[in-house]
Amino acid sequence: MVHEKDLALLVDLYELAMAQAYWAEGMHDTAVFSLFFRELPKNRNFVLACGQQHVATVIETLKFSREHIKRLEGLDRFQPEFLEWLGKFRFSGHIRAVPEGTPLFPQEPLLEIEAPIAEAQILESLVMNYVHLESVLASKAVRVRLAAGERPVVDFGMRRMHGVDAAHRSVRAFRLAGLAGTSNVLAGLDYGLTVSGTMAHSFVQAYPDEMDAFKVYARLYPGTTLLVDTYDTRRAVRRIADWLKRDSGARVSAIRLDSGDLEAEARDCRAILDEAGLQDVRIMASGGLDEYRISRLVAAGVPIDGFGVGTAIGASNDAPALELAYKLTEYGGLPRMKNSSGKQSFPGGKQVFRQYDRDGRMKGDVIGGREEVFDGDPLLRPVMKHGVVLVSAVDSLDQQVEYAAASIRSLPAAYLALEPAEPFPVVISAYLRALQADALKRIRG
Amino acid sequence: MVHEKDLALLVDLYELAMAQAYWAEGMHDTAVFSLFFRELPKNRNFVLACGQQHVATVIETLKFSREHIKRLEGLDRFQPEFLEWLGKFRFSGHIRAVPEGTPLFPQEPLLEIEAPIAEAQILESLVMNYVHLESVLASKAVRVRLAAGERPVVDFGMRRMHGVDAAHRSVRAFRLAGLAGTSNVLAGLDYGLTVSGTMAHSFVQAYPDEMDAFKVYARLYPGTTLLVDTYDTRRAVRRIADWLKRDSGARVSAIRLDSGDLEAEARDCRAILDEAGLQDVRIMASGGLDEYRISRLVAAGVPIDGFGVGTAIGASNDAPALELAYKLTEYGGLPRMKNSSGKQSFPGGKQVFRQYDRDGRMKGDVIGGREEVFDGDPLLRPVMKHGVVLVSAVDSLDQQVEYAAASIRSLPAAYLALEPAEPFPVVISAYLRALQADALKRIRG
Repeated sequence: MVHEKDLALLVDLYELAMAQAYWAEGMHDTAVFSLFFRELPKNRNFVLACGQQHVATVIETLKFSREHIKRLEGLDRFQPEFLEWLGKFRFSGHIRAVPEGTPLFPQEPLLEIEAPIAEAQILESLVMNYVHLESVLASKAVRVRLAAGERPVVDFGMRRMHGVDAAHRSVRAFRLAGLAGTSNVLAGLDYGLTVSGTMAHSFVQAYPDEMDAFKVYARLYPGTTLLVDTYDTRRAVRRIADWLKRDSGARVSAIRLDSGDLEAEARDCRAILDEAGLQDVRIMASGGLDEYRISRLVAAGVPIDGFGVGTAIGASNDAPALELAYKLTEYGGLPRMKNSSGKQSFPGGKQVFRQYDRDGRMKGDVIGGREEVFDGDPLLRPVMKHGVVLVSAVDSLDQQVEYAAASIRSLPAAYLALEPAEPFPVVISAYLRALQADALKRIRG
Repeated sequence: MVHEKDLALLVDLYELAMAQAYWAEGMHDTAVFSLFFRELPKNRNFVLACGQQHVATVIETLKFSREHIKRLEGLDRFQPEFLEWLGKFRFSGHIRAVPEGTPLFPQEPLLEIEAPIAEAQILESLVMNYVHLESVLASKAVRVRLAAGERPVVDFGMRRMHGVDAAHRSVRAFRLAGLAGTSNVLAGLDYGLTVSGTMAHSFVQAYPDEMDAFKVYARLYPGTTLLVDTYDTRRAVRRIADWLKRDSGARVSAIRLDSGDLEAEARDCRAILDEAGLQDVRIMASGGLDEYRISRLVAAGVPIDGFGVGTAIGASNDAPALELAYKLTEYGGLPRMKNSSGKQSFPGGKQVFRQYDRDGRMKGDVIGGREEVFDGDPLLRPVMKHGVVLVSAVDSLDQQVEYAAASIRSLPAAYLALEPAEPFPVVISAYLRALQADALKRIRG
């Protein structure tokens, strides 16, 4: 398992190889690297950028230990003097980032790092890994939450997430995306999201009669949720209704459906419960749900009061990866750009200005040079100076959650829908376009 | 970030809630839980089961600390006596698992846990998370490796993996899947996979002329690989060829193409290199590659000598999740089964027998009861007894890699292809079928 103290060594070899080359060549000038994505995943209208402030706190403490240096010696590729430099490495640069939970569009930087080029290069894969995970999972979860409307969505995904770090940081992303709770104890406690849970089929199966299992749970956990689909859903709900009518001391808040035709079963179960006067017993649904299934259930007016969602948000199953890129855009004061087929970008440090209409709805963005000024809110804000996190600039998670909710609410309706919308209006400033044209001319020179 | 000492608390709340109920009810009988998957992901012919021995070593040291207990108290759901029990919890049960790197099919257990029911229940999500990650990534990577034939495949995926645990354990899975190397320093060193790396576009961009970047690298890293697609690929390769012809001291092993029409560019670059007498300079390709693109390039005879693959294997992008299930199959000596629509399974502890033809090719499996005996190799082997890992039963990673390679080679050709094959012949024993029929009768009774 990876320990925090080993994160510096969680690096792609080429980053260290390039760092040694810069060091050997005395190339210590300042570089600007931009982290952005090239395209939206299919069927997505925005990416909810998350993790970019979080990773700054990781970078602040990053260092290569003696043991790391010894292990790197074994690769037979690094000079002793370079390894000495690496042993003293502490990131000394600046980071600007958009707030956690900002909806973003292609080409807009989530984060820009300005530092001596070797230092910025070393961070590449770790920064990407951190921001990628949280942005991918939050961007999926927010769709599921939007599809559910006012009904709470609870994360059940730990078991099918990619490893224990994903199982942990996912919950941070889910809070930013507006989920109501998680089944995950550690992550829920660490990130302040309500921890909730019901029972598994195994619990029902362990008793000779499922009613015994239900009664044990209701006694131990008054107001519990009972899982009713282990054998015959409607029969289970009828027996629960009979019991609750007879036993006024028993308190059950909800039943959970986890399989089958959720629409038909929810309607039948609602009818059974209502007939028994149990209007206050809610119906929760889970089992292979994603934003599309939830949206259909909600549109059909199916009487489901909340959703537990696992694999869809845990693995972002339709778009598990984002075309995130960490690109050199400036070095030694000169704009830089590559020109590989199909992968053009814009050189130079940047700022994104977000413009709103009178009702506070986002109406368009301008991507300009770092020193340009346009109407609108500049999104990239300093979060680290000279390697130190600006405590005043990094919000508490509660504040970030509030910011994210407000940001999502400010998106025009078409971008909150599940269906693909027209590309959001993002204008590239004339200055950046000219810079790109110049760079192309120089490259093709 | 998750620390090893906190893994016990990385649990779904319902597992602790059920454990408390078992504890409160004095239900301490032995349960058997089976870990299996219901269906193959689309277009897959087998799952390469990985992580099931690995997780046993995690379970061995799992415990709830005082701090964990204090945090659980705060959830206001657990009785002090239960928390005392939990504080003393050490897993005391048995685990049988198939060897790491075993190709498996639906319904075949990867692992079975036999323990007092509360203990086995607590492990559910952690066991699934561990095995899921490694099996998902290995199952994808083995396809990419098979598509590449004899050409080496190197993992470039860290940046788009889901978090740092995935970025680490992925490399264990990739070794089992037969990859040749990884760009990931920490994971490569920890899991004994060759660490390799070239340069990024940023390095080329940092110099006024890309030839300067190439010359610096070749001097520092004799026999290096040069990234040639930052500006104009063919022009770069022509200039490299001129330089290498003139400078007999310069040693370059390969060029890397990372974008564009790989087929056309590889052919043109090969011709340029060959004309210059540089037949020994190889061509590596990367950039959005997966098993299908690699297979087409190989089938077309494109002169590419090795592949760097990132997102496809890092996120298993076409099938990032596996329908893994951890189900109670026996409690108190009685077979158990649920009967939710569409989710039938077989009750009772099991064994899988793998049968081979005279040439050593797998010809079929029998899933039988744990005590049954059939022709063939029994796949589930004890790896833990009374909570202690059987050191003699858990192979070294080198041995596991060898076993995995032999197992994969023993698959019939149709299952090694990328195209979906007929379902592999898996027979359920008459005993298990009868057990299922009995259980159904009891349930419906």
